[in-house]
Amino acid sequence: MRPGDSKATTPKATAPRTAIAGVSGYAGAELARLLLRHPKLQDAPPTFLGRAGESEVGPSTYLEDLHPQLATGGDHRAHEVLPFSWQRIVDSGIEVLFLATPHEQSREWVPEAIAQGIKVIDLSGAWRLKHHTNRAAYRLKDANREHAEKLQTEAVYGCPELHRDEIAQARLVANPGCYATSVILALAPLLQAGVVDVPHGIICDAKSGVSGAGKAPTANTHFMHAADNLSAYAVFGHRHTGELLEQLHLEADQIQFTPHLLPIPRGILSTIYLRLEHATDAAAIAAVLQDFYRNSPMVRIHSAGRLPEIQHIVRTNFCDLGFALAPDGKRLVLVSCLDNLLKGAAGQAVQNMNLMCGWKEEEGLL
Amino acid sequence: MRPGDSKATTPKATAPRTAIAGVSGYAGAELARLLLRHPKLQDAPPTFLGRAGESEVGPSTYLEDLHPQLATGGDHRAHEVLPFSWQRIVDSGIEVLFLATPHEQSREWVPEAIAQGIKVIDLSGAWRLKHHTNRAAYRLKDANREHAEKLQTEAVYGCPELHRDEIAQARLVANPGCYATSVILALAPLLQAGVVDVPHGIICDAKSGVSGAGKAPTANTHFMHAADNLSAYAVFGHRHTGELLEQLHLEADQIQFTPHLLPIPRGILSTIYLRLEHATDAAAIAAVLQDFYRNSPMVRIHSAGRLPEIQHIVRTNFCDLGFALAPDGKRLVLVSCLDNLLKGAAGQAVQNMNLMCGWKEEEGLL
Amino acid sequence: MRPGDSKATTPKATAPRTAIAGVSGYAGAELARLLLRHPKLQDAPPTFLGRAGESEVGPSTYLEDLHPQLATGGDHRAHEVLPFSWQRIVDSGIEVLFLATPHEQSREWVPEAIAQGIKVIDLSGAWRLKHHTNRAAYRLKDANREHAEKLQTEAVYGCPELHRDEIAQARLVANPGCYATSVILALAPLLQAGVVDVPHGIICDAKSGVSGAGKAPTANTHFMHAADNLSAYAVFGHRHTGELLEQLHLEADQIQFTPHLLPIPRGILSTIYLRLEHATDAAAIAAVLQDFYRNSPMVRIHSAGRLPEIQHIVRTNFCDLGFALAPDGKRLVLVSCLDNLLKGAAGQAVQNMNLMCGWKEEEGLL
Amino acid sequence: MRPGDSKATTPKATAPRTAIAGVSGYAGAELARLLLRHPKLQDAPPTFLGRAGESEVGPSTYLEDLHPQLATGGDHRAHEVLPFSWQRIVDSGIEVLFLATPHEQSREWVPEAIAQGIKVIDLSGAWRLKHHTNRAAYRLKDANREHAEKLQTEAVYGCPELHRDEIAQARLVANPGCYATSVILALAPLLQAGVVDVPHGIICDAKSGVSGAGKAPTANTHFMHAADNLSAYAVFGHRHTGELLEQLHLEADQIQFTPHLLPIPRGILSTIYLRLEHATDAAAIAAVLQDFYRNSPMVRIHSAGRLPEIQHIVRTNFCDLGFALAPDGKRLVLVSCLDNLLKGAAGQAVQNMNLMCGWKEEEGLL
Repeated sequence: MRPGDSKATTPKATAPRTAIAGVSGYAGAELARLLLRHPKLQDAPPTFLGRAGESEVGPSTYLEDLHPQLATGGDHRAHEVLPFSWQRIVDSGIEVLFLATPHEQSREWVPEAIAQGIKVIDLSGAWRLKHHTNRAAYRLKDANREHAEKLQTEAVYGCPELHRDEIAQARLVANPGCYATSVILALAPLLQAGVVDVPHGIICDAKSGVSGAGKAPTANTHFMHAADNLSAYAVFGHRHTGELLEQLHLEADQIQFTPHLLPIPRGILSTIYLRLEHATDAAAIAAVLQDFYRNSPMVRIHSAGRLPEIQHIVRTNFCDLGFALAPDGKRLVLVSCLDNLLKGAAGQAVQNMNLMCGWKEEEGLL
Repeated sequence: MRPGDSKATTPKATAPRTAIAGVSGYAGAELARLLLRHPKLQDAPPTFLGRAGESEVGPSTYLEDLHPQLATGGDHRAHEVLPFSWQRIVDSGIEVLFLATPHEQSREWVPEAIAQGIKVIDLSGAWRLKHHTNRAAYRLKDANREHAEKLQTEAVYGCPELHRDEIAQARLVANPGCYATSVILALAPLLQAGVVDVPHGIICDAKSGVSGAGKAPTANTHFMHAADNLSAYAVFGHRHTGELLEQLHLEADQIQFTPHLLPIPRGILSTIYLRLEHATDAAAIAAVLQDFYRNSPMVRIHSAGRLPEIQHIVRTNFCDLGFALAPDGKRLVLVSCLDNLLKGAAGQAVQNMNLMCGWKEEEGLL
Repeated sequence: MRPGDSKATTPKATAPRTAIAGVSGYAGAELARLLLRHPKLQDAPPTFLGRAGESEVGPSTYLEDLHPQLATGGDHRAHEVLPFSWQRIVDSGIEVLFLATPHEQSREWVPEAIAQGIKVIDLSGAWRLKHHTNRAAYRLKDANREHAEKLQTEAVYGCPELHRDEIAQARLVANPGCYATSVILALAPLLQAGVVDVPHGIICDAKSGVSGAGKAPTANTHFMHAADNLSAYAVFGHRHTGELLEQLHLEADQIQFTPHLLPIPRGILSTIYLRLEHATDAAAIAAVLQDFYRNSPMVRIHSAGRLPEIQHIVRTNFCDLGFALAPDGKRLVLVSCLDNLLKGAAGQAVQNMNLMCGWKEEEGLL
Repeated sequence: MRPGDSKATTPKATAPRTAIAGVSGYAGAELARLLLRHPKLQDAPPTFLGRAGESEVGPSTYLEDLHPQLATGGDHRAHEVLPFSWQRIVDSGIEVLFLATPHEQSREWVPEAIAQGIKVIDLSGAWRLKHHTNRAAYRLKDANREHAEKLQTEAVYGCPELHRDEIAQARLVANPGCYATSVILALAPLLQAGVVDVPHGIICDAKSGVSGAGKAPTANTHFMHAADNLSAYAVFGHRHTGELLEQLHLEADQIQFTPHLLPIPRGILSTIYLRLEHATDAAAIAAVLQDFYRNSPMVRIHSAGRLPEIQHIVRTNFCDLGFALAPDGKRLVLVSCLDNLLKGAAGQAVQNMNLMCGWKEEEGLL
């Protein structure tokens, strides 16, 4: 991991043509909103596409039909949503393709897009994991396994705070998981600084709003189940764990991740417990965090004693970090908050696009 | 409509055998809870049955699996839920059958149950409406139309406050709709007292929690849609309107009913607007209400100036009524609150069973 | 009322100096957010002031302390909040003053501000009402009654869709109440078109999120009371009723307004019931609405059969209007939705500022 | 700690006279509800008293005024709430006094009550902690320090699952904290079984609904702050930590407790992380829990793989326990759920009363 300024990528003279495949979901809606108001894309609105086999998207489907909160009061038919097709993508001269699609679809479509010379930012879990064992949870099937592995090696994990330079040069960016982002951003500085007692083990108790469970109506996303409730799930078995292991260079028994379903629409709060190698003070911890994120406009470090809360980051692309240190100076609690649909999905994807286009990282995100 | 004490029905010497068909839904769960703790049924626990073709109910399904909140800490397998079958009902000697089933199923099963000499309390809309036109919204299909019409004529609308005596004698009780109950209980006393300017028209603006929309996961019951939201629906077209017309003896253009979906699990609040024939004072209105409900333990009249709110009736079988009178003494606002799953469904069903068995109306409901 | 294009006001060459007094409340926070990102004010950030006697605002109070959700990740001390003082306002050369203060304070401060040549947009109820009787609910005390009455006469009701031209020329704009805006925007077109049976009476059943009750912690705004609840209040006695009477030219017995407290943070939905003079069809109603709002970018008319809901307008400055017409063509239900903190307060205030400065009405609001 | 059957306490021939001081709060309301319907108290309804200096309770205050959800439809004045006075307590012949009062008041009143021969169940934190250092957080002031220390030594920590016999004999029961109960019940069996790697440290990540923060309206309990939010607080400094140390016989650096405020009315879920001394399997863990709670009707052990959730225990007196074991058999996650107002306060207090009176522990609680 290498924080710091990105190497200069020559900004494009004209805005690239962009497309969102899978615009009907929650992350798709946020992506649409961000790209439509993105200062660099004002002359080149994105193309909106459905997923494969999606019944919601047919002839004469408009963005406002799928997401009424995006209506502007102008022409209702300003933004058509079209069924996905490669022909359409080629005809539209798409240069950057966002995939807000299920991982099976992303796994299938990415090789084709790359083959066509299109850069891809994939929001699914399909391309995030380098190691077979971590990827197993997704049960991916590759038509051409060798080619897929090569692409997998090339794919850059789209966490700008860790991989700015690689993202700027990437053809394929695997946008991180929402939970994973909240944990990685909290832990990376301290792990890199070498102050964590890693063998002791790190505990990540994470809580997410219901949008993280997706738009499909299920027993778990029914209001009657989600409201006035809290539940833990996927203990010792959540797919995002692999991202933690790979990005933080940890072994499976060195970090434990437990997600919970919160009765709120959006937002993640992760409470992270670790031991330090040596007793230290709050100022030293603050310095490690501040130093690591000096050039990262989307991460905010709270002053000692102030802990982030979900309400302060919802509908922003910020990740807020705070901490409390035990009186013994050795036990540390980190609290990390972000909006799972923005810094945890669509906002981070735009941050990645900005880097790939040589623009300011936070362009269109403040 | 005839309020007042019910005629004496000789109480049964032994508790009747009861069954709930469709116990897997929200109303079914409340029915199960109420019957299991019903003082008169302590020696005769109900039989729990699924719906036709229900996948949730199979071999070795227990009540606690379907409704974990009903677990008592005792034997998890205390209450088996069995697939519905007539053979089972006959073998168990069922005398009172609660149908918490879709109206199509209720329409089909009721004639069979009655033929078997079983009394039925049907919670669906299948048998509530005497007039064809009102019933049209349910698109019911009768195998034997003539027989169905005869049964329909016999069916008693299960609003104890209006039809106590008929319910006590009934073979088939059509348990009222939740919205309808809240409106009928508010309006019946004033309409009967002849003080309402009926031709002017009555406006019923009703708001219900999400459990009213049923357990099936849909786009509308998804937490992301229902939470932090409010929406009107079925304006000029809600099925419960027919119950208002029939029970309150009104014409279609004399009452308007508009339901809204509230972001809460349960509870209905109906705000009802009407004009009085002659200017009057609050004491007179209060007297009409109190007089009508003198012998109705499940209806509570608020003193003038205090309006009911949902929080005060949730998880009770009460219907709370309050009102405000305009300074001109002619414009009246009634506010009616009840729990849609209890007084609006399962609680009222038990109230009806109590009457049918010659027990105190409120038995097991306080 | 006169909809349509505003007369040309010559836009200011340089951005005016603005100040918000009472920035610590909910409307103040939204105003701060809107002004800080307003395209025309990028070179002239607003001055942030407290209320009189406010303990929250002292030396070294910053906007981010009061409203952490406004933090940008930049310098935490970028925006100081200062105790209110006339000296400060004069020294800062303030030209437009927003008052997000209690009505008593607004009533006291406005004459002073106007005397100093400062234009005022007052978000309180202090200056909205022309008639004494309507104003009585606010129990206002004027130091100089005669002068106050003169100012009152001059004050323009800040509903841009009705009073664009007057607002553009005004020194004192009384920003409308949140509930009142939702009802006035729904009814004004139909009343102006003369199609409403006014003597029959109009019913407005309105529901608002908790932010409408203000930031002060009270028994009613306690989470335990507001959550999972719904209650009607101030029946026949809500202060916003006076605005309806004056702006819609109605008598007290021609319109009834009943507010309810919704268990959501923000948003208002008003369901409005009226009778038409003559039977008509949906197309005619739609035409009246569309015609009236042809040049009003902040009002959106829904096509027939689609009703607005709160989720679609929250965090926008739009007022969404929809309707349903009874089969008899005479009974009409209007549904009006807006965000009480934006179109119902801060957003509308900025819309008024835009008009007063000769800018596009929707500048900084989309 | 000694689980198991309680020694026989001879049941009282007649019901004791009980009183609740501090009935106006949330725990007081639940206590009132439980005692009013308690089978053993049907002939001896409790006396309801306020707190010292409480403005809510004056002449002619009735229980239904303070807690409208407790209204039964019967005589509104059935249950008067009186200002607290010793004279009243003596005159009423009170034998068991529940204190639902702030800890300062409990600390002051308990010695007086005990001196009068009255048994006390105190719901505050005043008498829970044996060690000075743990008690320091409460800043208690004793009029007679020596006497207070003696009483403190005598006070029994009212966790029936751990101290059944002592409770049965106690004059003073210190009812446990809500968070503490959820953690202690989860950990006690495993710690007693000696299977926990205690020096490694135990992490308790707890989440509670807003009722835990009390009835006083504050910035934190305002709907606008609590709703759609999650925040950690009192990290390394929550008062309940002392109860964990004392009841579980742990050192301060062996257990970490972090509470969070959930956007729901009631319920606690604690996620607890620990390491086992030796690798084991799920069956062995389940056996430890089941064995420990064999005679504890208010604790339910979930079968392996099923985790408790808040919705299943809200409005019950159960504590539900579940767990997940890592594939390595050494890292254990315990999940503990209870209703903070019942098993975490009023319900547990009644459980203690039952033991003190020689009744079945679960009497009136199922």
